[in-house]
Amino acid sequence: MAKKLSWTEARDILTEQAAPVGTERKPLRDACGRILAAPVTAVENVPPFDRSPYDGYALRSADTQGELPVTLNILEEIPAGSVPTAALTPGTAAKILTGAPVPEGADCCIKFEETEFGPETVTVPVRLSPGENLVRAGEDMRIGDLLADAGRRVDAGAAGAIASQGIAEVEVYRVPRVGVISIGSELIEPGEPMRPGCIVNSSRYALQAALEAEGLSVSFYPIPRDDTDAIAALVDAALTENDAVITTGGVSVGDYDLTKAAYEQAGVRILCGDLALKPGGKSWYGIRNGRLIFGLSGNPASAMTNFYAVVLPCLRKLRGDPGGRLPEMYAALAESFGKSGKQTRLLRGRLILGESGPVFAAADKQGNSAIHTLAGANALAEIPAGTGPLEAGAKVKIYYFGE
Amino acid sequence: MAKKLSWTEARDILTEQAAPVGTERKPLRDACGRILAAPVTAVENVPPFDRSPYDGYALRSADTQGELPVTLNILEEIPAGSVPTAALTPGTAAKILTGAPVPEGADCCIKFEETEFGPETVTVPVRLSPGENLVRAGEDMRIGDLLADAGRRVDAGAAGAIASQGIAEVEVYRVPRVGVISIGSELIEPGEPMRPGCIVNSSRYALQAALEAEGLSVSFYPIPRDDTDAIAALVDAALTENDAVITTGGVSVGDYDLTKAAYEQAGVRILCGDLALKPGGKSWYGIRNGRLIFGLSGNPASAMTNFYAVVLPCLRKLRGDPGGRLPEMYAALAESFGKSGKQTRLLRGRLILGESGPVFAAADKQGNSAIHTLAGANALAEIPAGTGPLEAGAKVKIYYFGE
Repeated sequence: MAKKLSWTEARDILTEQAAPVGTERKPLRDACGRILAAPVTAVENVPPFDRSPYDGYALRSADTQGELPVTLNILEEIPAGSVPTAALTPGTAAKILTGAPVPEGADCCIKFEETEFGPETVTVPVRLSPGENLVRAGEDMRIGDLLADAGRRVDAGAAGAIASQGIAEVEVYRVPRVGVISIGSELIEPGEPMRPGCIVNSSRYALQAALEAEGLSVSFYPIPRDDTDAIAALVDAALTENDAVITTGGVSVGDYDLTKAAYEQAGVRILCGDLALKPGGKSWYGIRNGRLIFGLSGNPASAMTNFYAVVLPCLRKLRGDPGGRLPEMYAALAESFGKSGKQTRLLRGRLILGESGPVFAAADKQGNSAIHTLAGANALAEIPAGTGPLEAGAKVKIYYFGE
Repeated sequence: MAKKLSWTEARDILTEQAAPVGTERKPLRDACGRILAAPVTAVENVPPFDRSPYDGYALRSADTQGELPVTLNILEEIPAGSVPTAALTPGTAAKILTGAPVPEGADCCIKFEETEFGPETVTVPVRLSPGENLVRAGEDMRIGDLLADAGRRVDAGAAGAIASQGIAEVEVYRVPRVGVISIGSELIEPGEPMRPGCIVNSSRYALQAALEAEGLSVSFYPIPRDDTDAIAALVDAALTENDAVITTGGVSVGDYDLTKAAYEQAGVRILCGDLALKPGGKSWYGIRNGRLIFGLSGNPASAMTNFYAVVLPCLRKLRGDPGGRLPEMYAALAESFGKSGKQTRLLRGRLILGESGPVFAAADKQGNSAIHTLAGANALAEIPAGTGPLEAGAKVKIYYFGE
């Protein structure tokens, strides 16, 4: 038997094949949370003019170099949104509001609470330097500066930066469509009466929550008969209608494990599968016309472990993330881990960013079907083949998939 | 002058007033990503019956205690989704597929690849113990076990756990509605022609991205005249139509800084404001009929710093998060920080979970208006009053607000 692939080898083979979906032009207000398909650069200086950071007075610093305090005549008042009408001459100032452009001739400002003022004059008690209390044109951003690069999410900072430039539309990746097929005649839906030997199709809901949290568009297909033809027909339809497809169930080696045969019948080229991983090693992956299909275990927790480890990096790349790979780091195990084994394990659990450093709290039960232990999980911890048992506090490698 | 409040004091005063919005019953498929308003407990054992974790044979361990290998007669085949029809007697076994219930009398299973088998018999070469390769009823979950507590997000794990119990509906908090009012006659929208003295309303887009990323429903109001009556009318409408309101602009002390007066005119009771914080200290917070209103600076980066530090914890509590507070931790500064000051600073930047431990990369520019430096930011770092300059590698306290 050939050596099984590691999960990272499979992930790398598959992310290599994952190419971002197409792009579309969107108004900025419809693009929040999406990923930029092209870099956005500054088209204006920010601020566009020298402006006052305070409510106060704009003046000439030269007028404060002699005897102090010095009293200046107020030429005009410049609210934010207005334009100065007169240049300052020696001995004059302009009343100015936060954000307003300073008049020609002014090279500094002073807060109004640091002055004495009347309707006609302002008295300045301190020496000021050129540029003091003044925001220079282009100080925050110059024309051509990169606002946000391709592959960057339109988050609060990017949205604000793009808007501040008056840019009303951006090129973003469209939302990838993911089809989900649950295979297994034993599956029923929540709310249907329980029958002996039946199991509720929980993977479907776990996948829905995980896929929606990633901002993906998800379509669910009806549960097919345990029959190669029926599964192949559904796989064919799902690969036609979506950018990627996930199936659960039917990946083991027994009589009813039909996924691989159905994939091949639907014209899928198998890329890899059956990983040296516990749980979630049972899996098949393929591609048809550039569209990936991921065949995960019928055991919900196995399926979700494999989903986060292998599938999610591919889907993130589809969505426009440049690399797709989950952020990696080290954390201390919150509790000891008693098992050792011949296969690499991925533990599900919660990375906690505590005051004494990052800690990984593994879920209580790590069985294949213990889906409920994934609640609150945000990371996988890797226990490499041949290591373990591990003491509490032992450093483990963490793959963070998010809240 | 009274001592200014710290940002944490203001946050605590305000989160104290923030009560979760009402709840609603939702089908599970519409509840993914929402927050549970009531605990969900198990109504069935998982698995509901003793079942096989593998494709193979169910048998009586007693039959493997004598001379090996032992050959057993196959009584029947039990696919997943089926019910056994015959109890095992000594010297018999049942062919069984992954997930199928074991027949009465069977107390262990063996993978089919570890046996030799024909259509009628299976030969077992190893001694097996009671319970070996068997998933016991209730092993993963027992009736009454907590599946997911109130205040817990319906994430992949929770959704899977709830579905696995056949529970088709859950009680969740409804999505809070947040109204946003941008104050400032100098503001124009992206795409409108730039006019001298005008500034694009970038805070609106930064807030949209931040609020939508939190799963909140956001309404934007037209920009009012710089006039107490006009602002008060809008504040009144927004507080009537939303669970919380954010205004930006008009919080300084000058002539056109009308927010506080407009709040009071609209019947808002001011709770606190004007914090010892840089940037983002200029602010007013109030409440009317239990609904909070947050008056942030007109400077976009000041507004967003204050938003993450003070407003977001309140909104998270409104949404159903029990505490609301941002996760706190320590991280090493990626670069030195050159400034010191009399006021507590919050630096915007990116918490990076690197292999050598958590690192905080402060954004390049920390000016009040440098909104673009927030792109990619996921955390605030606190530089307490009177500290700094700080070397690269210095530990700072981090408040993590997420991707």
